[in-house]
Amino acid sequence: MLIFGKMAPTSLTARFQQSVTPASLRAYLAEFISTFFYVFAVVGSAMASRKLLPDAAADPSSLVIVAIANAFALSSAVYIAANASGGHVNPAVTFGMAVGGHINVPTALFYWISQLLASVMASIFLKVTTVGQHVPTYTIAEEMTGFGASLLEGVMTFGLVYTVYAAGDPRRSSLGAIGPLAIGLMAGANVLAAGPFSGGSMNPACAFGSAVIAGKFKNQAVYWVGPLIGASVAGLLYDNVVFPTQAPDSVEGVGV
Amino acid sequence: MLIFGKMAPTSLTARFQQSVTPASLRAYLAEFISTFFYVFAVVGSAMASRKLLPDAAADPSSLVIVAIANAFALSSAVYIAANASGGHVNPAVTFGMAVGGHINVPTALFYWISQLLASVMASIFLKVTTVGQHVPTYTIAEEMTGFGASLLEGVMTFGLVYTVYAAGDPRRSSLGAIGPLAIGLMAGANVLAAGPFSGGSMNPACAFGSAVIAGKFKNQAVYWVGPLIGASVAGLLYDNVVFPTQAPDSVEGVGV
Amino acid sequence: MLIFGKMAPTSLTARFQQSVTPASLRAYLAEFISTFFYVFAVVGSAMASRKLLPDAAADPSSLVIVAIANAFALSSAVYIAANASGGHVNPAVTFGMAVGGHINVPTALFYWISQLLASVMASIFLKVTTVGQHVPTYTIAEEMTGFGASLLEGVMTFGLVYTVYAAGDPRRSSLGAIGPLAIGLMAGANVLAAGPFSGGSMNPACAFGSAVIAGKFKNQAVYWVGPLIGASVAGLLYDNVVFPTQAPDSVEGVGV
Amino acid sequence: MLIFGKMAPTSLTARFQQSVTPASLRAYLAEFISTFFYVFAVVGSAMASRKLLPDAAADPSSLVIVAIANAFALSSAVYIAANASGGHVNPAVTFGMAVGGHINVPTALFYWISQLLASVMASIFLKVTTVGQHVPTYTIAEEMTGFGASLLEGVMTFGLVYTVYAAGDPRRSSLGAIGPLAIGLMAGANVLAAGPFSGGSMNPACAFGSAVIAGKFKNQAVYWVGPLIGASVAGLLYDNVVFPTQAPDSVEGVGV
Repeated sequence: MLIFGKMAPTSLTARFQQSVTPASLRAYLAEFISTFFYVFAVVGSAMASRKLLPDAAADPSSLVIVAIANAFALSSAVYIAANASGGHVNPAVTFGMAVGGHINVPTALFYWISQLLASVMASIFLKVTTVGQHVPTYTIAEEMTGFGASLLEGVMTFGLVYTVYAAGDPRRSSLGAIGPLAIGLMAGANVLAAGPFSGGSMNPACAFGSAVIAGKFKNQAVYWVGPLIGASVAGLLYDNVVFPTQAPDSVEGVGV
Repeated sequence: MLIFGKMAPTSLTARFQQSVTPASLRAYLAEFISTFFYVFAVVGSAMASRKLLPDAAADPSSLVIVAIANAFALSSAVYIAANASGGHVNPAVTFGMAVGGHINVPTALFYWISQLLASVMASIFLKVTTVGQHVPTYTIAEEMTGFGASLLEGVMTFGLVYTVYAAGDPRRSSLGAIGPLAIGLMAGANVLAAGPFSGGSMNPACAFGSAVIAGKFKNQAVYWVGPLIGASVAGLLYDNVVFPTQAPDSVEGVGV
Repeated sequence: MLIFGKMAPTSLTARFQQSVTPASLRAYLAEFISTFFYVFAVVGSAMASRKLLPDAAADPSSLVIVAIANAFALSSAVYIAANASGGHVNPAVTFGMAVGGHINVPTALFYWISQLLASVMASIFLKVTTVGQHVPTYTIAEEMTGFGASLLEGVMTFGLVYTVYAAGDPRRSSLGAIGPLAIGLMAGANVLAAGPFSGGSMNPACAFGSAVIAGKFKNQAVYWVGPLIGASVAGLLYDNVVFPTQAPDSVEGVGV
Repeated sequence: MLIFGKMAPTSLTARFQQSVTPASLRAYLAEFISTFFYVFAVVGSAMASRKLLPDAAADPSSLVIVAIANAFALSSAVYIAANASGGHVNPAVTFGMAVGGHINVPTALFYWISQLLASVMASIFLKVTTVGQHVPTYTIAEEMTGFGASLLEGVMTFGLVYTVYAAGDPRRSSLGAIGPLAIGLMAGANVLAAGPFSGGSMNPACAFGSAVIAGKFKNQAVYWVGPLIGASVAGLLYDNVVFPTQAPDSVEGVGV
């Protein structure tokens, strides 16, 4: 209620005050918890593959492991946060919602902080409990350019954010019930296609957290520029072209 | 509303005019977006398998990768287009709906154009971003005949289109909510059975797009003749025999 | 409506007449179609594994293929038949429903005929289109006894039929929507556990159809005795102990 | 109804009497059945992997097998018990519900007995029917400490119990329908991440049953201490911080 819906223009102070209400603080905590478990599963499953098979990055079974972890964890993570924060679990989704006017900018910044912090914490947690196991970062295939990888990540994030918009659209009626599943399955399908090429992140928080702990920021821009642009285009296209809203504030977060 | 339901006979001009309304144009765009992401996942996952393992076509894990990509992507793709276009994502489904009288012929033609264009675009996009990685096409096992492969693809498409009809049937009440999942799971199950034999396409657009970019049209007819016949039989059987409609226009697209 | 609910005692003739109404004939056809696609996926995925890897029966990836095919295909098959026949897709389920008094005996017999015929047809179809590829039958591990395998299959079928009863229970309200998924997932989980031991059939029709085409009836009794007993116990326990019905006819088929 | 909701303080005798009503006895039986099939799938799938590949613990495909078995079986097990017992299927979940005041202590004890008994029975059943096949127990990676493994199991159980609370929250409206799936997918994702490190149990009953039959209690505490603490924190955080209840008794079991 507080978070979504087209907002009337208000002063920055008023907007900031809206961002520190008890309901907002709960939303940030919900984003933290959901993003923590999403990153835990995605980064953890890549670590598990490497533990089993040192050369896991070149093994088809490992691609299955990472893609299923992504699909399962994102479905659950979106589900558990849906009623408190809308279940973004991803700075690109939050960005797309802010561009579409469904969340105000100060609130979006606090969402980002929660998501990035959760991702860093999940990566630290994995490194500590597995006693210094190497934390893998997203990498792009040798033959690919940074621009190509960014384009690939951007288009996949478009698909993901478009699905988030669809899942949160109250006009879907009974189909709304499986919204979190549709979001997770879209992410999993994209990982299966792009895993060996750009890694299939679609989530700047996930790429950032593992990079911080591994200390490798090579190609980090690939996982921010593409996804943020893709997310913005998805939001604008959904709201204004494919499913234009007659009345204001008719697109809401998942399950709100 | 505009798209489905048994239509009264009208002049070709009137029908064509129905096909260029804003709602129709949005439906074509929705089909384009959904088909793009479906083909991206199906063709991309086959490319990912080959990147990891050059002889992936003979590896069981690769069959898992492609089948799961199919199931996940089709569920999501149908879900996101459901309210705008009915979520066909497949020229065979559109053909089956046209034969059953649930979509008029000019509109169906525009659906086909959107779907084929999306498939070609997805294949080009994969080829470009992966820097000239080989785009795989559907092939049939050496010992099989073209007729046998066409029969296999036709029967599987029958199952898929029958599921699409069931998912869009408003008499299903609460079961309607998981319709897009049932469609995706049927496709994934069929791929697991037919992958090493005929490829398990069930979708002429997907076979066409990859063939255009790879420049290989061998056995292309297999992926059109069987599926179109299977789709027609499924539609007619569902509407007239297994779940006959008392009143006209009671079968509608998924979630409409 | 016609098929489920506790029936008042009637003469055999009257019961038989109830079994040849148009609605009943549609139910038999729906069972045929659903069982055909279920057996196609289960037997076909085992054939696909062997085509890729001749020694597939000893490969973990092949277990994943067969189990996922089972889960996906059963969810879809139950879904598409739910409104016409209750979505049994399995003679053991029909037997459990008959023991519980939710379907009369002549109707149950026609269900069995439809299911067995569908399974034989699916196996023939696979053999013909794949040009004489070997049709695999269910086998039990060397060290196991027939009694042990029958017990294993019986307990797993108990779990499956108990889930079918739960999915069709109208007291579940909103949870009813995912009933077909719960049924498919229970089957898939059981296959993952029992695949290398007894095969994980839980379905006499599936075991029968492949045996007819392969001409091997060794251990066929294992796949009938255990499942039929397990199904009966599940139905009686569900109806009379765990979820006793206050009023008659409150347990119905999935989605009816 | 009987089981959940904040309870008024009552005498121990009265509470005990509440724990032996027919409805309670049915709830214990439902927990027994669900936990039996969950443990059967989890332990059985690990045994199946080892049957196929003696060194399965170091094979990526086996991780896929065990994780999918976990996700599929837990979704189904929660689903079939939802209306009778709330679908705990896990002593840690029951503990978290008791700490949150949603189930009284005597009833919780009977839940524990049912769950532990079911797990032991499932392990015996697997050992007997597979003719003395080795029953695997949860182990932690060599380089890990017991404290680290306990922490890992505890955090994952937090995620699982938080999801159980979310799935049972009546304020979710239509999202409630996929609650059992969200629970199963969270468990599956966690197994993919932690499988080769601490095993990914999150369930003291499952760890206990296999240990009893294998006669190995090494590190058993890891699978009790972490999960019980994680479950308690999850329940308290969900009820009091993230989704505080205005009125008493507004958090209930799944689907109740």
